[in-house]
Amino acid sequence: MARHADQVVEIENIGAAGPVLLVCEHASNRFPDRWGTLGLTEDERAAHIAWDPGALPVARHLSRLLDAPLVRSDVSRLIYDCNRPPDHPAAMARSSEVYEIPGNSSLTADQRLARTQAIYLPFHGAVAEMMARMMARGQRPVLVTVHSFTPVWFGQPRTVELGIIHDADPTLALSMLSLARQHLGLDCQLNAPYSAADDVTHTLKLHANPYGLRNVMLELRNDLIASPESQQAVAGALADVIAAAVTEISQIEAKGAA
Amino acid sequence: MARHADQVVEIENIGAAGPVLLVCEHASNRFPDRWGTLGLTEDERAAHIAWDPGALPVARHLSRLLDAPLVRSDVSRLIYDCNRPPDHPAAMARSSEVYEIPGNSSLTADQRLARTQAIYLPFHGAVAEMMARMMARGQRPVLVTVHSFTPVWFGQPRTVELGIIHDADPTLALSMLSLARQHLGLDCQLNAPYSAADDVTHTLKLHANPYGLRNVMLELRNDLIASPESQQAVAGALADVIAAAVTEISQIEAKGAA
Repeated sequence: MARHADQVVEIENIGAAGPVLLVCEHASNRFPDRWGTLGLTEDERAAHIAWDPGALPVARHLSRLLDAPLVRSDVSRLIYDCNRPPDHPAAMARSSEVYEIPGNSSLTADQRLARTQAIYLPFHGAVAEMMARMMARGQRPVLVTVHSFTPVWFGQPRTVELGIIHDADPTLALSMLSLARQHLGLDCQLNAPYSAADDVTHTLKLHANPYGLRNVMLELRNDLIASPESQQAVAGALADVIAAAVTEISQIEAKGAA
Repeated sequence: MARHADQVVEIENIGAAGPVLLVCEHASNRFPDRWGTLGLTEDERAAHIAWDPGALPVARHLSRLLDAPLVRSDVSRLIYDCNRPPDHPAAMARSSEVYEIPGNSSLTADQRLARTQAIYLPFHGAVAEMMARMMARGQRPVLVTVHSFTPVWFGQPRTVELGIIHDADPTLALSMLSLARQHLGLDCQLNAPYSAADDVTHTLKLHANPYGLRNVMLELRNDLIASPESQQAVAGALADVIAAAVTEISQIEAKGAA
């Protein structure tokens, strides 16, 4: 696919026919020239504050295994975090964990607006288009967002390995939690290492809640998906859990409607 | 403003600075050549099934009086009803009240998708852009949708004159109801002649709920806004009620935060 330098979102596997839509808001640590490096070092731009390491390769395996389209960002979350609304402090964060972000320290309203229009709106426009496309052809899309988190946060190790996070509708998260604990061999926790109360479910609120569609946010600890082999292995097991949960819910709903 | 024949949405008063965003999903009974007349007579295309008569002039007065941008459709709701999701039967209705819509009787999935992409997505893209623009510059926009309803429905007269309809957050609707009953001299009812349970609050769900923003849907009986004079008079009184309700809520919230 040809890539335009200003492109901030890509849709992969657009012709896929399955019921799941995958979204990866923090897929990229690219800092396009238009915005520069925000005053960050190369190491800082490679750290978890700039993106979710490992999330995109896992999402791509899931896309293939689940026959699911994937909407993914192509710009660092530090320029605009597409999982936050435009008036949220973390949309263009002045600091993240122990790092200061110099290029975000004194943004004007016009600069905030320019980033919102250049990144937030096209990203969510692409997700909205895919959801509408699937609904127009009679599907009830299932929204799954794919994230990774750092194993150490403010010096504290995190023991959770897979976080399954829900917003208003816990149906898919609860079904997945049960299946994941049976089949994954990981420490799986509900609403960990954070939850909707921490404002991390914006994409679910925007694209699933208004339509009453099933949805979940997945958080993998990034040390578990640091190599191509582990990414493939984790994604393979996770795809089975997602598919089984979606099937389980469809069967319960079909029985309820019968 | 130059108008493209395929244009389905217009933003009026785009530079307005007030906190309210007005939306008029059913502003127009235009049937662009691309879709034709759907097999309807001229009288049918002028009837309430095709649009909300009087709603746009009222919304334009409100836009001026409240210094509020207005996002409005420029295509009949019978081609695509922008207040319905793409998989809803009423998005491209096969019938409406006592009328059959021949051009909607046997749409294929591809035709549904084409209308969704041509009308639903750009319309809600425009609303999303305005909401994001207001939030990026530090406002907490208040979403007000403006509709009209027919005085006789399936042969039954409706006595309600102003319906104030809410979705998950009733704050603005309740504040407006109290003020409207004191000041408007109209029969004002909450969640009448229909309510969120009838799937009429899609725009509120899409653009206000995800951000926790105040919102309301207004329904005026169309015989009360049939002339330029009555449109101006009703809009003038309504603008005062909206402004007073927005101020009342801001004051309560400021007190709560203090």
